[in-house]
Amino acid sequence: MPPSTQGPAPSPEDTFRILLATDNHIGYNERDPIRGQDSINTFEEILQLAKKHNVDFILLAGDLFHENKPSRESLYKTIALLREYTMGDKPVSVELQSDPDEGKAYGFTFPAINYEDPNLNVGIPVFSIHGNHDDPQGAGVEGALCALDVLSVSGLLNYMGKIDLPVVDVEATNTGIAVRPILLRKGKSNLGMYGIGNVKDARMHFELRSNRVRMFMPRDKDNWFNLLLVHQNRVKHGPQEFVPEGMFDDSVDLVVWGHEHDCRIIPEPVAGKSYYITQPGSSVATSLADGEAITKHVALLTIHDKEFQIEPLPLRTVRPFVIEEVVLSEVAEEEGFDLSDQIEISKFLKAKVNALIVKAEEEWQERSAEIVKEGGEDLKPMLPLIRLKVETTGVSEMSNPIRFGQEFQGRIANPRDMLVFHRAKKSSRAAASKIAADEPELSIDDPDLTVSEKLAKVRVATLVKEYLSAQELQLLGENGMSDAIQMFVEKDDIHAIQSHVNKLLKTMMTGVQANEDIDEEEIEDRLARVKEQQEKDYVSGKANSKAKGKGRAKANDSDAQSEDSMMMEVDAEGAGSEFNGYSDDEPPKKTAVKKAAPAKKAPVKKAPAKRAPAKKTTRGKKVVESDEEEIIEIDDDDEDEEEMIKPTKRTNRAAVLSQSQPKKAPARKKATPAPKQSQISFQPASTGRSSRAAASKARGKMVVDDDSD
Amino acid sequence: MPPSTQGPAPSPEDTFRILLATDNHIGYNERDPIRGQDSINTFEEILQLAKKHNVDFILLAGDLFHENKPSRESLYKTIALLREYTMGDKPVSVELQSDPDEGKAYGFTFPAINYEDPNLNVGIPVFSIHGNHDDPQGAGVEGALCALDVLSVSGLLNYMGKIDLPVVDVEATNTGIAVRPILLRKGKSNLGMYGIGNVKDARMHFELRSNRVRMFMPRDKDNWFNLLLVHQNRVKHGPQEFVPEGMFDDSVDLVVWGHEHDCRIIPEPVAGKSYYITQPGSSVATSLADGEAITKHVALLTIHDKEFQIEPLPLRTVRPFVIEEVVLSEVAEEEGFDLSDQIEISKFLKAKVNALIVKAEEEWQERSAEIVKEGGEDLKPMLPLIRLKVETTGVSEMSNPIRFGQEFQGRIANPRDMLVFHRAKKSSRAAASKIAADEPELSIDDPDLTVSEKLAKVRVATLVKEYLSAQELQLLGENGMSDAIQMFVEKDDIHAIQSHVNKLLKTMMTGVQANEDIDEEEIEDRLARVKEQQEKDYVSGKANSKAKGKGRAKANDSDAQSEDSMMMEVDAEGAGSEFNGYSDDEPPKKTAVKKAAPAKKAPVKKAPAKRAPAKKTTRGKKVVESDEEEIIEIDDDDEDEEEMIKPTKRTNRAAVLSQSQPKKAPARKKATPAPKQSQISFQPASTGRSSRAAASKARGKMVVDDDSD
Repeated sequence: MPPSTQGPAPSPEDTFRILLATDNHIGYNERDPIRGQDSINTFEEILQLAKKHNVDFILLAGDLFHENKPSRESLYKTIALLREYTMGDKPVSVELQSDPDEGKAYGFTFPAINYEDPNLNVGIPVFSIHGNHDDPQGAGVEGALCALDVLSVSGLLNYMGKIDLPVVDVEATNTGIAVRPILLRKGKSNLGMYGIGNVKDARMHFELRSNRVRMFMPRDKDNWFNLLLVHQNRVKHGPQEFVPEGMFDDSVDLVVWGHEHDCRIIPEPVAGKSYYITQPGSSVATSLADGEAITKHVALLTIHDKEFQIEPLPLRTVRPFVIEEVVLSEVAEEEGFDLSDQIEISKFLKAKVNALIVKAEEEWQERSAEIVKEGGEDLKPMLPLIRLKVETTGVSEMSNPIRFGQEFQGRIANPRDMLVFHRAKKSSRAAASKIAADEPELSIDDPDLTVSEKLAKVRVATLVKEYLSAQELQLLGENGMSDAIQMFVEKDDIHAIQSHVNKLLKTMMTGVQANEDIDEEEIEDRLARVKEQQEKDYVSGKANSKAKGKGRAKANDSDAQSEDSMMMEVDAEGAGSEFNGYSDDEPPKKTAVKKAAPAKKAPVKKAPAKRAPAKKTTRGKKVVESDEEEIIEIDDDDEDEEEMIKPTKRTNRAAVLSQSQPKKAPARKKATPAPKQSQISFQPASTGRSSRAAASKARGKMVVDDDSD
Repeated sequence: MPPSTQGPAPSPEDTFRILLATDNHIGYNERDPIRGQDSINTFEEILQLAKKHNVDFILLAGDLFHENKPSRESLYKTIALLREYTMGDKPVSVELQSDPDEGKAYGFTFPAINYEDPNLNVGIPVFSIHGNHDDPQGAGVEGALCALDVLSVSGLLNYMGKIDLPVVDVEATNTGIAVRPILLRKGKSNLGMYGIGNVKDARMHFELRSNRVRMFMPRDKDNWFNLLLVHQNRVKHGPQEFVPEGMFDDSVDLVVWGHEHDCRIIPEPVAGKSYYITQPGSSVATSLADGEAITKHVALLTIHDKEFQIEPLPLRTVRPFVIEEVVLSEVAEEEGFDLSDQIEISKFLKAKVNALIVKAEEEWQERSAEIVKEGGEDLKPMLPLIRLKVETTGVSEMSNPIRFGQEFQGRIANPRDMLVFHRAKKSSRAAASKIAADEPELSIDDPDLTVSEKLAKVRVATLVKEYLSAQELQLLGENGMSDAIQMFVEKDDIHAIQSHVNKLLKTMMTGVQANEDIDEEEIEDRLARVKEQQEKDYVSGKANSKAKGKGRAKANDSDAQSEDSMMMEVDAEGAGSEFNGYSDDEPPKKTAVKKAAPAKKAPVKKAPAKRAPAKKTTRGKKVVESDEEEIIEIDDDDEDEEEMIKPTKRTNRAAVLSQSQPKKAPARKKATPAPKQSQISFQPASTGRSSRAAASKARGKMVVDDDSD
């Protein structure tokens, strides 16, 4: 963000220009004849935007691929697109300051960073961490590998934030997570990019709380803009099933948060912290949940010295999506028909869907018109995604939703899963339509899953359970095995189970070998004990199955206490840098950290006093809840007093189905990179249905239609 | 080969230098803790040889990958190796004469040939066709894709010889196979490379006989050295389960034959034809058959004008492999023990294996010593592959071969499948130990499969059969479905079955839709007829299910008549070139070819009179069966009179277990690229056990130990 005092615009030669995007989910639904190319088309649009906006590089925050093993077609097309758009004569004006060989392929001479390779003519480097969909799997000679490794070794993408240690590697887990940045310089600006690829939330939680996430920062870290990339749950799914926003170190200036699919790309402050969070959201809707209906954007992120600015760029190739919910019992009362009258219900639902199609078309045309007015090209017409959630409490029998959808073939993109039925138990619609748009795929309870989706999930889960109980697994614990089977099923990792069993056997043999003079019964006894221990370890520590007992107990506590106790092993005091040229000192002794940290509350090490306040205060503050106009105001010196928007609050707000909001007046048109004010056309907390609202960054007009209820 | 008259050596600036290899089978057995890295290690050695011998490019004839979907690790490592060894500043002195965009990725601007891309600094281009293991699968938006497509679009390999039409694409098969060459020029030499990736032998047979393989040659094709790459069975497996050697057009100068794993890299003449065949063989043993025990080589192929020369280069990283067969009944008689005496049998077998291990070690050390003598580095010691085939006729019970093998853990590379038992029915050992080393993987009857391998195969095959009969497939024919399931199982193509069913349904609906006024029974009748027709088509034509009836009958004939009737649609008369710059004429009408060709014997179109005899006669002729020394002699004008080595004969010769041959005298040392004579250290027809015999090209010494029988 520009400084608050209206000074001269920052010089371009000192300003990083970054195309920010995430969760492209290439390959999502690729066999679908209508939607199959959506993800790849939008990825191409993002590459085009990068070119158009003349960025220095592209930054992605995970889940580039939807499948852990992308189809050959997805891989092929992605590679082709990267080669097409990111190779070329455009000079890269960003100097790499960190070691270009850091993270390079073992045993090879070419560097890890593609534009440092003299054999490749890279115009726009791409940097990415992995997500939960495309995380490293397997444990061959090369270690766990992910699809990004393949792109990286091809020289087409720079994979960062690889966690060295797979979760299941018992031997290695005591080292925590080491984060080595990519350090870049452009003119007088310094940028450190710290990537942490996705790990299970429970583990991330544990590592953060245990003070085992060590960020290796240069000694003069305050002269750097420190950007952190994560790909975790931000919305709470359970005590440890998310990462609290405030858990990161204060040396960080901006967190780019991947994984959550709703676009909240406008930076949001974090209570008690000096950093902001930007959550670009996915570039394709992978679940038809409310959050996915928020108009999708990527952003042009510019960084000058310690200041940054985000200009959201709406995506043109994202399929229009309208979502709505009806409660049949209420409708029946209003319209005066009986809940047992299937014909009336069907008639009503058809009318509803037709109205939604019209609404989607209107929104699309309006958006297109706006774009044309601004000199852009007409939007290509696309069949819309329609999701009608029907609360069927009180209705004894409903018609087949798939058959119902067939009538709309050729008019909507998703006839097969347009309609979903659910019965309200707690009937809290606000809670039901939660924003979290990505994680549902793993949860059977998710109300947004279609019946067949649920069936598929249930079957696998049930099968696994039944299979395991039928086996009476005498040696192998169910928990680890369950994980392995899940990996086998969902990540298509055919060796997951084998690897798991091998590892367990090894551990058990080590446990038994100590004394060889024991009879068979005793062996079984011991094995049983080892197994028990394994299971215990799994439950309490999971990521830390070798940690001492004390630590484990704490690690399992609720997250309530952890939000403040979070501390990162930043080598601010010059104690822990492993960088060449920064410091030769050893990092803090790992064993000491391991034993002590989980057992007692780690000392809070944030050192706000050390930071130059002048530099920290030039960020954007959102004036929230302005009904008429949405403007990002740039303010000085008040970040700590800013209203904190708690995740839960956001969730609720997003879920509230707004009633007939008036059209908002258009905001002023943005001319040049305006200091002090950047006008933004959308607000993350608005309802999920305003897909046209953020059609352009210049116009903040927002129309939210009346809902049916 | 150099001209027979000892003229001056061909000028290097006019001479192509090509590293020739094939069937690298990267990823073969990659989970094996001992052998897992064998294939990739040897592939690296091949890349190193390419560098060492300063070649213009590398030429591969298929099956670069063992799995149709290579593991991530294999893909990663292969990409890394290609980037490491083939990118670089070495100037490429080979000019591309054909269209660099021919075959490029649809919708992209980068060229198909990597060294034409200004963004890539390619030092040693790699060209490859696909094999049967890594052939294109699937039918997405991009069409069928194979692993080579991924490498190709990455800019790391130039994939040639892709067959546009998948076998199962009923609509498209009437166009035959079009072969568009890659045309290269180096100084005054012109090289046309015609690649035909693997298709099922039956189809290739049909296409060749039906005159539907159209090679698009430049008009002045006689000024070009025409090299054809194929990847098919060369050894007869059934009437149409191979491609006869003499089936190719006489415009071809050299055929590089992939797929067969035994190294017959020394060019062999073909009776009645003016071309030679070189069969490099695999660079890793994927089945423990006799053919795989022939010492493995790649070659330096040099081409000057219409002359070529092949210098075999022995591979250092190939694991030593010793194979032997014992007939227990004979042994028992000789040694005087009873066939029911398991202890004696076991004792004998152990002694035998121990002897084989010693033999392998001796051979290895001898080879290593030779290499050191010539200034090379010591060979790295490797555990040997041992295969002992045991004929158990008359023995009632044998011990478990896997348990037996455990005793040799740590001493051999393959303890689990070292021993194979079989009972001689026809007892023709010569026939049993056939050379064909690749295909066995698909055949349950193969005597070289281990019991567990067989079991695995039987189970899949049986399951498929049982499943299909249980379904009483009313609409879907078994044949196509069987293929689809096989693809699903063996190629890991999860959509094979779905695609097949979809296509069939489409066809059926087309067949039924014509008249809508029919009742249900009639529909079933019609469907049954459509199904019947489908099945018939499959059996008779397979590749040509849309061809007219007459053609189909012919296509199913035995191959006896086809060897001579083969003719290729070479546009020698300027009728069929689709090349820019060569001719603008249309190719021969496809429909005419389709209808006429299969029905009657196609006129033989080879035009030997048009070829300049002086240019055709400068090839190598092997003086076969020289026991003391093996020398390739270069002769003039006698190619048509050359002794033809029939495939069956070769097979038998290779299978004869030679008795205690005397050591061969070393051949003269090769100093410079010698015109007139090139000394070769091995002979493909020698027994399968001379793995050290061809240790270096300079020494032809060959020791074959006495066999047990």
